[in-house]
Amino acid sequence: MSLPQIGFIGIGVMGKSMAGHVLNAGYPLMVYNRTKEKARELLERGALWADTPTAVAARCDIVITMVGYPQDVEEIYLGSKGLLANAKPGAIFIDMTTSSPMLARRLYETGAKQGVKVMDAPVSGGDIGARQGKLSIMAGGDAAVFQEVLPVLNCFGTNIVLQGPAGAGQHTKMCNQIAIASNMMGVCEAMAYARQAGLDPQKVLTSIATGAAASFSLSNLAPRMLAGDMAPGFYIKHFIKDMKIAIEAAEEMSLKLPGLLQAKTLYDQMAAAGYADHGTQALFLLYTGRTSV
Amino acid sequence: MSLPQIGFIGIGVMGKSMAGHVLNAGYPLMVYNRTKEKARELLERGALWADTPTAVAARCDIVITMVGYPQDVEEIYLGSKGLLANAKPGAIFIDMTTSSPMLARRLYETGAKQGVKVMDAPVSGGDIGARQGKLSIMAGGDAAVFQEVLPVLNCFGTNIVLQGPAGAGQHTKMCNQIAIASNMMGVCEAMAYARQAGLDPQKVLTSIATGAAASFSLSNLAPRMLAGDMAPGFYIKHFIKDMKIAIEAAEEMSLKLPGLLQAKTLYDQMAAAGYADHGTQALFLLYTGRTSV
Repeated sequence: MSLPQIGFIGIGVMGKSMAGHVLNAGYPLMVYNRTKEKARELLERGALWADTPTAVAARCDIVITMVGYPQDVEEIYLGSKGLLANAKPGAIFIDMTTSSPMLARRLYETGAKQGVKVMDAPVSGGDIGARQGKLSIMAGGDAAVFQEVLPVLNCFGTNIVLQGPAGAGQHTKMCNQIAIASNMMGVCEAMAYARQAGLDPQKVLTSIATGAAASFSLSNLAPRMLAGDMAPGFYIKHFIKDMKIAIEAAEEMSLKLPGLLQAKTLYDQMAAAGYADHGTQALFLLYTGRTSV
Repeated sequence: MSLPQIGFIGIGVMGKSMAGHVLNAGYPLMVYNRTKEKARELLERGALWADTPTAVAARCDIVITMVGYPQDVEEIYLGSKGLLANAKPGAIFIDMTTSSPMLARRLYETGAKQGVKVMDAPVSGGDIGARQGKLSIMAGGDAAVFQEVLPVLNCFGTNIVLQGPAGAGQHTKMCNQIAIASNMMGVCEAMAYARQAGLDPQKVLTSIATGAAASFSLSNLAPRMLAGDMAPGFYIKHFIKDMKIAIEAAEEMSLKLPGLLQAKTLYDQMAAAGYADHGTQALFLLYTGRTSV
């Protein structure tokens, strides 16, 4: 039994590592990216190049997309030049972009009308998780399709869960981002309070980082805040995109999320102050009055 | 060298376990509590009873207090019938109540004028940590005094850090509570979103509880929320007390903490709805529209 032809659209920091793992596993791989240069390493390692997303759709059995914003997803998938209209019969598309749950359902339904299967499967674990092939993958779609693509997802994921029907993967990712959003305020506020009270914030961490206040962000991002390291592990601009999707989805469900709204307001202030391309831990600067540094 | 006489004022859930460990370590122990009945087990195990806090002060070398609110601390320590005015010369007082950093400094200064040493040393770890003798202790005060009381604190603590001068222990505890406050919103909002979106919240936890959204509250309190178990590990009324202290202290330092203010507003709503004696995880009910259940 020959392996399916895999397509990968979106060779960014995450996509490059993920596609590399697919190649390592022996799958035939075809890639497309807006900037060809970013795909060079993969091409040197044997991946085929496609000049358009449509060309990927025409040739591949399983196509993975990992692009930036919901509007990019919409543009690539829909319309006469889109992936779905130009797919091989029976092809499977997996959108791993963090995107809108509503859009995920729309892609699924549009695909179904054309005999094409679509799954949503956003990830968490960041660039390090992608490099190590240890991403958490939150999938939404049909169970049989999930089983079919699982060997491919296993190339770069370790905690792979089918959360429910189309959109459920995106909804689960929103839960993840919602939990992080308010916690980032708490972590920044705790560290800003520590500094303002004249404490040694590093020493405060030794008291609080392992108890009831313990969190990934407190252990991993607070030390970066204190060291003034605001380099992006996760970009503020992307976090704002995610919070916006979550807020819109919550509004559609008549759910009020005041913590999320407050966090979004603060991050919007950071973006307005020129910090969109910094890491999410830079929110700390808003509390220490140094957003203009 | 004979062991110092230890006094313990405030035999609640926490105090009972802590005093028991002091007794286990072989220290002579004298106890006072408003309700004598709660001290019965300790008395049966050899602790001496004192009819008033003043009687404890008159007899003990090291006195630990673990009471409810800052006003209780003020009442027990200050005034002509207070601990400080009736202390043995050179006695050491350790207030382990979560209380105001400003009050902690006032007790320290008042004590110093009377030749008495005062430390603030609030704890985290809850009833389970107290029972297991594994509390985190965040101390403020003089380094020499800290060294002197360390053997006693070691009876029930494992992560014992002198954070700085008088008040620094309370300030550190505030950092802990500030981090928890916003995170509780994030955890509740993530779980409320999951439920509203038709996901299986338990399954969502398997995707998100170990990644970037990971926290003590997500792993330990979210499952209780989902199971409808709102029994107090930590009372909403005590959490509100702590947040109030933190907000006042932050205001004195001209520090704005919007996440904390938002969390306090939500918990105040819970208290107003009759949930003051429930656990902090009951905040979930506010998001699911079931505060009146």
